[in-house]
Amino acid sequence: MSHFQPVALHHASRLVNHGPTVLVTSTDGSRRNVMAAAWSMPVEFTPPRIAVVIDKQTFTRELVAASGAFALCLPGTALVDVTYAVGSTSGREGDKFARHGIAARPGPVLGMPVLEAGCAAWLECRLIPEPHTEDAYDTCFGEVVAAAADVRIFAGGHWDFRADNADLQTIHHLGGGNFVRTAGMVRAQPL
Amino acid sequence: MSHFQPVALHHASRLVNHGPTVLVTSTDGSRRNVMAAAWSMPVEFTPPRIAVVIDKQTFTRELVAASGAFALCLPGTALVDVTYAVGSTSGREGDKFARHGIAARPGPVLGMPVLEAGCAAWLECRLIPEPHTEDAYDTCFGEVVAAAADVRIFAGGHWDFRADNADLQTIHHLGGGNFVRTAGMVRAQPL
Repeated sequence: MSHFQPVALHHASRLVNHGPTVLVTSTDGSRRNVMAAAWSMPVEFTPPRIAVVIDKQTFTRELVAASGAFALCLPGTALVDVTYAVGSTSGREGDKFARHGIAARPGPVLGMPVLEAGCAAWLECRLIPEPHTEDAYDTCFGEVVAAAADVRIFAGGHWDFRADNADLQTIHHLGGGNFVRTAGMVRAQPL
Repeated sequence: MSHFQPVALHHASRLVNHGPTVLVTSTDGSRRNVMAAAWSMPVEFTPPRIAVVIDKQTFTRELVAASGAFALCLPGTALVDVTYAVGSTSGREGDKFARHGIAARPGPVLGMPVLEAGCAAWLECRLIPEPHTEDAYDTCFGEVVAAAADVRIFAGGHWDFRADNADLQTIHHLGGGNFVRTAGMVRAQPL
């Protein structure tokens, strides 16, 4: 049973505001792929827009160019090994979903593969073509057209990192397969 | 006594690879400012390049346009209140360094204000002018020309998050003054 519920689009930026490592998925209808990306960020609240670096050599980039769409899925701590594995191999060598037993279903608006089991949230995005930044910086802009999150860790527009949902907590890649988990929340006090 | 040591430029991306909230500083020689930014990411390893979202209404953006430069400083957990405070007020209303007792010194290459006390690292950046993305997405690209980190938490090109350096550990803004700290490191295992 999935615990995913839709996230209001004006809350979508909150899903990636804290800089988690994401899985980027795409499909051109006949082929699909999933890769890890540490380099993504929101760029606008409303309309919700994000930027993500997808190297021009990757199979995912080819699928994004073909489909004009992609999804960002946020792996929880339990998926750290899968995240590193799909970030270290190319989908041109074989379907990574099948190899790693990754379940995906079509996103509601664009049909991009979205992952729920083991993930905290996903964002389905329409590519905003920006040929210069795609070429010069491998930076792809996208508009979020649908989003959802596991209500055990994100509900009512807010993250809730607790001791009892550690497996769903986002991961942040330091490099070379070393990740940090998020930890206790800290509330800033007015100065 | 500062524990900061230079970071090799080919390791600079590692400082922000895990998505920490940063303080963006800039100066035009006579005026200076510091603001918080949750939206930044590396875009290239070598030459080391980053992207950061700086709203076009901000005083910092005006200084970056004037100087063609900025610095990203990584506040540690001990600076969470200062980070939120400088992200909630404008430098047009008064010097935020003075108001919050923030010590800064000129960066070695471009003279941008860099913060060390309470921070884990900083990156001094030369703006790469990209008028379209600056206008359409408030997204500013920069090349890192100098970087340094506190050796108690980043040394030999690697982060080391430990129980005894929690105050220096990076923070990640969820929104509304709620941050998460980084926690224990997790090493991915080959699949």
